[in-house]
Amino acid sequence: MTKSLRLGIAGLGTVGIGVVRIVRQQASLLTARTGREIVITAVSARDRTKDRGVNLANYAWENDPVALATRDDVDIFVELMGGADGPAKAATEAALAAGKDVVTANKAMLALHGQALAEMAEAAGLMIRFEAAVAGGIPVIKALTEGLAANQITRVMGVMNGTCNYILTRMEADGLGYNALFEEAAKLGYLEADPNLDVGGIDAGHKLALLSSIAFGTKVNFNGIELEGIQRIELEDIRHAADMGYRIKLLGLAQQSARGLEQRMQPCLVPANSPLGQLEGGTNMVVIEGDAVEQIVLRGPGAGQGPTASAVMGDVCDLARGLHLPVFGQPAKTLKQAPAASTGLPAPYYLRMALLDKPGALAKIATILGEAGISIDRMRQYSHSDPTAPVLIVTHKTTRAALDEALQAMDGTEVMASAPVALRIEHI
Amino acid sequence: MTKSLRLGIAGLGTVGIGVVRIVRQQASLLTARTGREIVITAVSARDRTKDRGVNLANYAWENDPVALATRDDVDIFVELMGGADGPAKAATEAALAAGKDVVTANKAMLALHGQALAEMAEAAGLMIRFEAAVAGGIPVIKALTEGLAANQITRVMGVMNGTCNYILTRMEADGLGYNALFEEAAKLGYLEADPNLDVGGIDAGHKLALLSSIAFGTKVNFNGIELEGIQRIELEDIRHAADMGYRIKLLGLAQQSARGLEQRMQPCLVPANSPLGQLEGGTNMVVIEGDAVEQIVLRGPGAGQGPTASAVMGDVCDLARGLHLPVFGQPAKTLKQAPAASTGLPAPYYLRMALLDKPGALAKIATILGEAGISIDRMRQYSHSDPTAPVLIVTHKTTRAALDEALQAMDGTEVMASAPVALRIEHI
Repeated sequence: MTKSLRLGIAGLGTVGIGVVRIVRQQASLLTARTGREIVITAVSARDRTKDRGVNLANYAWENDPVALATRDDVDIFVELMGGADGPAKAATEAALAAGKDVVTANKAMLALHGQALAEMAEAAGLMIRFEAAVAGGIPVIKALTEGLAANQITRVMGVMNGTCNYILTRMEADGLGYNALFEEAAKLGYLEADPNLDVGGIDAGHKLALLSSIAFGTKVNFNGIELEGIQRIELEDIRHAADMGYRIKLLGLAQQSARGLEQRMQPCLVPANSPLGQLEGGTNMVVIEGDAVEQIVLRGPGAGQGPTASAVMGDVCDLARGLHLPVFGQPAKTLKQAPAASTGLPAPYYLRMALLDKPGALAKIATILGEAGISIDRMRQYSHSDPTAPVLIVTHKTTRAALDEALQAMDGTEVMASAPVALRIEHI
Repeated sequence: MTKSLRLGIAGLGTVGIGVVRIVRQQASLLTARTGREIVITAVSARDRTKDRGVNLANYAWENDPVALATRDDVDIFVELMGGADGPAKAATEAALAAGKDVVTANKAMLALHGQALAEMAEAAGLMIRFEAAVAGGIPVIKALTEGLAANQITRVMGVMNGTCNYILTRMEADGLGYNALFEEAAKLGYLEADPNLDVGGIDAGHKLALLSSIAFGTKVNFNGIELEGIQRIELEDIRHAADMGYRIKLLGLAQQSARGLEQRMQPCLVPANSPLGQLEGGTNMVVIEGDAVEQIVLRGPGAGQGPTASAVMGDVCDLARGLHLPVFGQPAKTLKQAPAASTGLPAPYYLRMALLDKPGALAKIATILGEAGISIDRMRQYSHSDPTAPVLIVTHKTTRAALDEALQAMDGTEVMASAPVALRIEHI
């Protein structure tokens, strides 16, 4: 048999321990499938004394992940610390400089530094694999990079943040408000240390930027994403959407056209009976459309110890079997800098606003929409007791640019009690 | 750049022409992604004179696929002729003997001869890739063999014959009977030359046998599948199922337990609101469950020129990139001969029978079920004008063995107008 493949694991949180468990419990399966013994030689984490429920005594301990990444007895550096910069990036760079392949679950690091890291890896003939960084246990990076490699990808979409989807589906199922569920999610440990990463759409945006790069052969461009979180979604939005046959999802979408590369991560209304509309709880779904394959839908757990460790170890197995691919599916030096699309395709929009109860307020809003060339599909004003009138408008298809113009004009009217909520309606 | 990768394509039907189209139209994309130029050097089919809508003049023509498979200017033999034996098998063996890797969409050949072909390929250090053989455009072989390689797979399920699913969903949607839809499907060209391959569940069974081998590290065992087609499903079964919140699907299931390897391909009742229950038309769905990943659901087009060619070319790209794996995910010589499970896990069953209108007929049936240890969850006898009484029974969980015993006893009673329809109810 070929010699053992030796892993050095930095980060012993949920996922790191999941990887340790798989390596120990599935040793013979992994060897049968890869033809090699896969072993852990060294580990690293912040606190050596913490009880993690597994025996780590047989592995060398390093306090410094950079030291771990450069050990002579490590073939693959498994980076599970997280964080876009700091120790994760330093250790990844050190591993590459020392000639080690890297497996990581770190979407933030790759979304912000993926291009430089990929160029560094490829110049040295090394690989960075990151299946666990996107959509947890779903082998979506593999499907896109390898299985669908013969397709001109036309569109990638997905619900890729389980916490947001959990909050949104619980709001509808249990009639609870956003704030109550946000606090519950925090208590359950579903939120990142900086919750804005989740509810602000940033984590999901990182994932979309990675998929987008592979799909379209473009440099990872997280800053080119039109990004919006779910913080302003209220229970009444969920209810209005449901009344009209929709569900609200934090939906990522990337597509390339003559207009440039369009990348959006924002709450949208999607048909309640579509696969994305039916997705509940922490489950993730990615939809890939290509010229030959038409449409593929992948669904699975977006987080959790087992699923994420499954993805990490899938990458390790690939490396054990000798797979060699560019990080983003084609050499990093050939990836293009795609100009962000100036405006997305027109779509209908859902608008919820609170108007001050003044004569002519509604007429003013309707006039502004008309002047911006936006026609109204449906409008409802609800009866109310407080001095603001809740108004719901569904527009016909319009561009975001025209809508922004109208929203700005409304802002100047002094009939708005607060900024309107505007959500795109995606028929997919 | 590395030298060109040269394909020889045998079989120029829908899929073969789809592959030719991709190679021609996506040349620069394929080179960007694989680092190699991918070209077609030679083709082969039965009728050279047929107009296939693409210009084949630049490719050498071989009447004999064996001659094609052994040409010096062919690196990969792409087998798209179909048929378990005959020219497809002869040419595949010839290609392997001549040192060529093979890409095929031929589920029948691999389901019946996969073990011998894999051993032959692996002894010569060659690969046989067959993504297109299972679930059309869905990269399910890749997901199972590579992405989920670190999982102990616990169960694989799927709807993998688009034609059967088309017939079953049309029966419900349009209230048409099986025979009418069978004839429509034949007219539309949806059926194999031998329609029993589709409606008899054989084609889907071939696919299940391949998935099963990869999932459980066992030798492909098509003959070990409990196989049943959809020919006996009547419109009233579809309606009874819908009344109770179920849909009828031709469902494949493979799982390994202490009882042995259980492989079934048969019409089952599944909850109407489950992902499998919601699957309509020709779309395929595969559900993979593993100890770490929990559950992954993959959905996509199960057939058609673009999707199937996408899968074939995904395999070609893998080979162009230098991927090297055993045919069934672990060396063929290490695959185990799994004993077929003597009996499946107990499940509730749906029974529809036509009783002769004699006093005590229903009592006799109920007694037989009781004596076989099968308790009844629901029973309905419908009013009727003809001399046979339609009776519907849903049992509590029972084994297939107990059920078969009861069905055999009923057969001896002379109160049955025809053999009962018995369908397993799967809560998945």
